[in-house]
Amino acid sequence: MSQGTLYIVSAPSGAGKSSLISALLKDNPRYDMKVSVSHTTRATRPGEENGVHYHFVSVDDFKALIEQDAFLEHAEVFGNFYGTSRLWIEEMLSKGVDIFLDIDWQGAQQIRQKMPKAKSIFILPPSREELERRLNARGQDSDEVIAKRMEEAVSEISHFNEYDYVIVNDDFDVALMDMKAILRAERMKQDKQASKYHDMLDRLLAQ
Amino acid sequence: MSQGTLYIVSAPSGAGKSSLISALLKDNPRYDMKVSVSHTTRATRPGEENGVHYHFVSVDDFKALIEQDAFLEHAEVFGNFYGTSRLWIEEMLSKGVDIFLDIDWQGAQQIRQKMPKAKSIFILPPSREELERRLNARGQDSDEVIAKRMEEAVSEISHFNEYDYVIVNDDFDVALMDMKAILRAERMKQDKQASKYHDMLDRLLAQ
Repeated sequence: MSQGTLYIVSAPSGAGKSSLISALLKDNPRYDMKVSVSHTTRATRPGEENGVHYHFVSVDDFKALIEQDAFLEHAEVFGNFYGTSRLWIEEMLSKGVDIFLDIDWQGAQQIRQKMPKAKSIFILPPSREELERRLNARGQDSDEVIAKRMEEAVSEISHFNEYDYVIVNDDFDVALMDMKAILRAERMKQDKQASKYHDMLDRLLAQ
Repeated sequence: MSQGTLYIVSAPSGAGKSSLISALLKDNPRYDMKVSVSHTTRATRPGEENGVHYHFVSVDDFKALIEQDAFLEHAEVFGNFYGTSRLWIEEMLSKGVDIFLDIDWQGAQQIRQKMPKAKSIFILPPSREELERRLNARGQDSDEVIAKRMEEAVSEISHFNEYDYVIVNDDFDVALMDMKAILRAERMKQDKQASKYHDMLDRLLAQ
């Protein structure tokens, strides 16, 4: 059994990151891929399920988890805490499950320091025009709101070169195949294969 | 235009390396993959074509090429010289062509030192029994000859952990898809994509 890989996935909004991860996990017959579910102290919204969208915990519980060093990264956003569970991720990786972590460049930097074997993927939109179109898809936002979204997107994109892999999401199916190729190739890495085929290699190398 | 990748491919005989490389290059609509053709001083054999199977050169020409540092690696086998042209490979890589170098672990070590960006792939047979069966496929060799081949195969296999990727060739089509995934994933690497999408990234990042 070889260790799973932790994939950090970042993108500006409008690049199609969530759709790509969803499509990837739909086609998952061996259940060897999972998305990391964050802990949060914010209130549950209608339709959200505990353990699926978030692990909903109290502020006291969250602080206790910080004390136990249970998070790979955590942040406070608008008065609510959000964190990524180190324990759950390490358990899944040890079972050979690949974990996807949907996170921005700042979280990615924290994760890389704590999990140096993590692989990171950045998803890019195919052009500035298409990004603007996607950010304005509903067509009912003010120019100011769209300009603000564009500024945030450009700021996120400026960190693309900190990532191991870059996928350009022009055609969704092509981008999905790119992502699948990365996962398949990472499983061919020597150290993973050496664990997976440990017994066979012992027999092959016996004189 | 991003640089091509130099792939070092090694395997014991019987692992199916040549068939995998041939199958890969048959499905090559963009002509962006080529196999490196070695230089040799040995005599042409029936059916061999200059520039296709080998570049056939005289001993004097070969020695002049050594003087010019024209080879990434070279070796003498049974009185004949064999060498891998650095110039041709560097030209092809600069045109974005991926190059496959079919070479043993010793040649691989030399290439890695001179071309540190090269990626290396080791092909393994699926089991000791299957390796023995493949090494004895013609069924007309003495036990001694087969034992000698097995010994050489085991010696080559003992270097598998010097390679970036390991493919187990049990089912040929699966192994071919593994190889294609590696090539596709390597093209998603950040530095390759940054070159390929240089202009688009400039436009995306303009404020």
